[in-house]
Amino acid sequence: MKKYLLAPGPTPVPPEVLLSMAMPILHHRAPDFIPILDSAKKGLQWVCQTKNDVLILCSTGTGGMVASVNNFFNPGDKVITVNGGKFGERWTKICQAYGLTVEEIKVEWGYSIKPAAIEEALKKDPAIKGVMVQATETSTGVAHDIEGLGKVIKNFKDTIFIVDAISALVAHDIRTDEWGIDVLIGGSQKGLMLPPGLAFVGVSDKAWKMNETSKMPRFYFNLKKERENLAKNQTNFTSAVSLIVGLNEALKMLQAEGLENVFARHAKLAHATREAVKAIGCGIYSKDFPSNSVTAIEAPAGIDGQVIYKNLRVKYGITGAGGQDQAKGKIFRLAHLGYADTFDVITGIAAIEMVLKELGHPIKLGTGVGVAQELLMK
Amino acid sequence: MKKYLLAPGPTPVPPEVLLSMAMPILHHRAPDFIPILDSAKKGLQWVCQTKNDVLILCSTGTGGMVASVNNFFNPGDKVITVNGGKFGERWTKICQAYGLTVEEIKVEWGYSIKPAAIEEALKKDPAIKGVMVQATETSTGVAHDIEGLGKVIKNFKDTIFIVDAISALVAHDIRTDEWGIDVLIGGSQKGLMLPPGLAFVGVSDKAWKMNETSKMPRFYFNLKKERENLAKNQTNFTSAVSLIVGLNEALKMLQAEGLENVFARHAKLAHATREAVKAIGCGIYSKDFPSNSVTAIEAPAGIDGQVIYKNLRVKYGITGAGGQDQAKGKIFRLAHLGYADTFDVITGIAAIEMVLKELGHPIKLGTGVGVAQELLMK
Repeated sequence: MKKYLLAPGPTPVPPEVLLSMAMPILHHRAPDFIPILDSAKKGLQWVCQTKNDVLILCSTGTGGMVASVNNFFNPGDKVITVNGGKFGERWTKICQAYGLTVEEIKVEWGYSIKPAAIEEALKKDPAIKGVMVQATETSTGVAHDIEGLGKVIKNFKDTIFIVDAISALVAHDIRTDEWGIDVLIGGSQKGLMLPPGLAFVGVSDKAWKMNETSKMPRFYFNLKKERENLAKNQTNFTSAVSLIVGLNEALKMLQAEGLENVFARHAKLAHATREAVKAIGCGIYSKDFPSNSVTAIEAPAGIDGQVIYKNLRVKYGITGAGGQDQAKGKIFRLAHLGYADTFDVITGIAAIEMVLKELGHPIKLGTGVGVAQELLMK
Repeated sequence: MKKYLLAPGPTPVPPEVLLSMAMPILHHRAPDFIPILDSAKKGLQWVCQTKNDVLILCSTGTGGMVASVNNFFNPGDKVITVNGGKFGERWTKICQAYGLTVEEIKVEWGYSIKPAAIEEALKKDPAIKGVMVQATETSTGVAHDIEGLGKVIKNFKDTIFIVDAISALVAHDIRTDEWGIDVLIGGSQKGLMLPPGLAFVGVSDKAWKMNETSKMPRFYFNLKKERENLAKNQTNFTSAVSLIVGLNEALKMLQAEGLENVFARHAKLAHATREAVKAIGCGIYSKDFPSNSVTAIEAPAGIDGQVIYKNLRVKYGITGAGGQDQAKGKIFRLAHLGYADTFDVITGIAAIEMVLKELGHPIKLGTGVGVAQELLMK
């Protein structure tokens, strides 16, 4: 059976990128590799809309999150984490693992954080040194209001704004500098159309200032040393050379498309997905700002979301994602992230219709597909 | 110009492995990936000669070293590091970064540690909880006596033996269980013939026992969680799927060759390299146990080792390695590691002869090559 990867990471890697990574291995300190890293470094700044250094780590995205906790604070420092899903919860766990005093602001799953809530919390306790949030919460398909949060947080001169944009980057317009994001985290296996293995961390001057007084034990994720190395187009330890070659290739593809067009494509695919599944009787789990990276789809009443997810894979070769924790059984998820276009959405919607029909859901085949087609033709 | 990678990591990746990694991306939690990780996991146990779990981390080898410090000790714990080169020095730095009390035993560059010295130090201070060493010290081309050290250390019931075998694995016969290695660290971009991006950590029961009382902050490198996940053929965070697919392919190639043959091949290539460079008037930097992974070659009197290294690359497209720190200028290095065979050695030796001749060293071209041929035909 032909396979389709429509999961919110890892996402499909374009053949051009796969082949670039199959080229002979370069040595990470040899001159051939330097211009590649230089170009990738500049491309990352372009995609992150920042003049800040965007450091390249050899790890999954979670490594970037850990680096963001580990390089700017001291044990006992107070931080706010926004927990509106599995990845928000991960912020809390990481901060606790490193001995920070965490004020966790819980957000009901399916909703985004109100910037006013963060403003209130920061006014109440000016000792808070950082606010950590997801740009998009992959487990719920919700986008948080990063622009609005940035406006609030930038008024607090001793507080840095840390954004996990791992699943948002490329799919969402994230204006790092304009919106006052101090630490921006990305990962390779999402919008950047690469295999897993790289994390990206963009750091503002305000955050570098805090790095100077941060005394936590660290060695592998030492952002200051990464910065010194990046200035020489190197990484602190052995570079993940093949992934960085692929990164450069993926960035070239995105640059050829243009950043505005990339965002518009993701917005269109996400919108078409939402309208199509609504037309066949499914709800959207995100109740305010749905993500452009992944759509969390509510299973119709009486049907288990996990069964839909499994049948998509087993019967039709489509790997999406199920629900996690409290959303397990209630939802299934379909991504439109990175190397995704019109017929990925059509494929996903058509398969959902077929699975739902087989499960006894009363629909006319082609209904959702028709809605998607209409919107995707615009 | 055609390029040749003869560096001690990254090393060349076989086309079979490169192409396997160019296959469509698999999802790390989906059933297609499970048997691949299962097979890679068992293959790693085979290559490490251990019944212990060998955990797979998404990081460079250094991440594996950090994990080994971070998961078994508490701040203030006493450890011994053996510093006979750049990577021994790294052990010291990592241990210090995590607040351990480090007794660093310095070994003159070019020499290996005497097991009796470790025995003496352990007898003097029974509170020492760990001994960290390299199986091969890449900066000096020296192999430490891991078997001998294991015999000594296993008599101390509260001391674990931690071996950085990143550049040794596959090139050297490392008998993890038989020799009493408690924590064995490997990396992908060396003998395992893969791009950089994976670290491997094999952990003994004795070390797991120490893990229970280790309270250092950790999150990304949490070996206990990796162990729980590995039992389900998963990794704690997103698996570096493409690298693990490649790992499985590389392990199949090594299995087809047979472990004894793999070791014999490396020993033969290393021996031929040493004898060939001696025949053209170069010394071997390693004064007792030379590594089978990489040969550190002393530049002839009056010639700068860095110039030889650079000329090999610039004039002949051969990327070896130079000397580091106190060995800089004195040596240059040529690897015979992983996807390496007869004509890689011949190529390296022939190019060294040509470079040396151009630099005014009085040699008859073909002298070293002839010696290598003779030995490689056996």
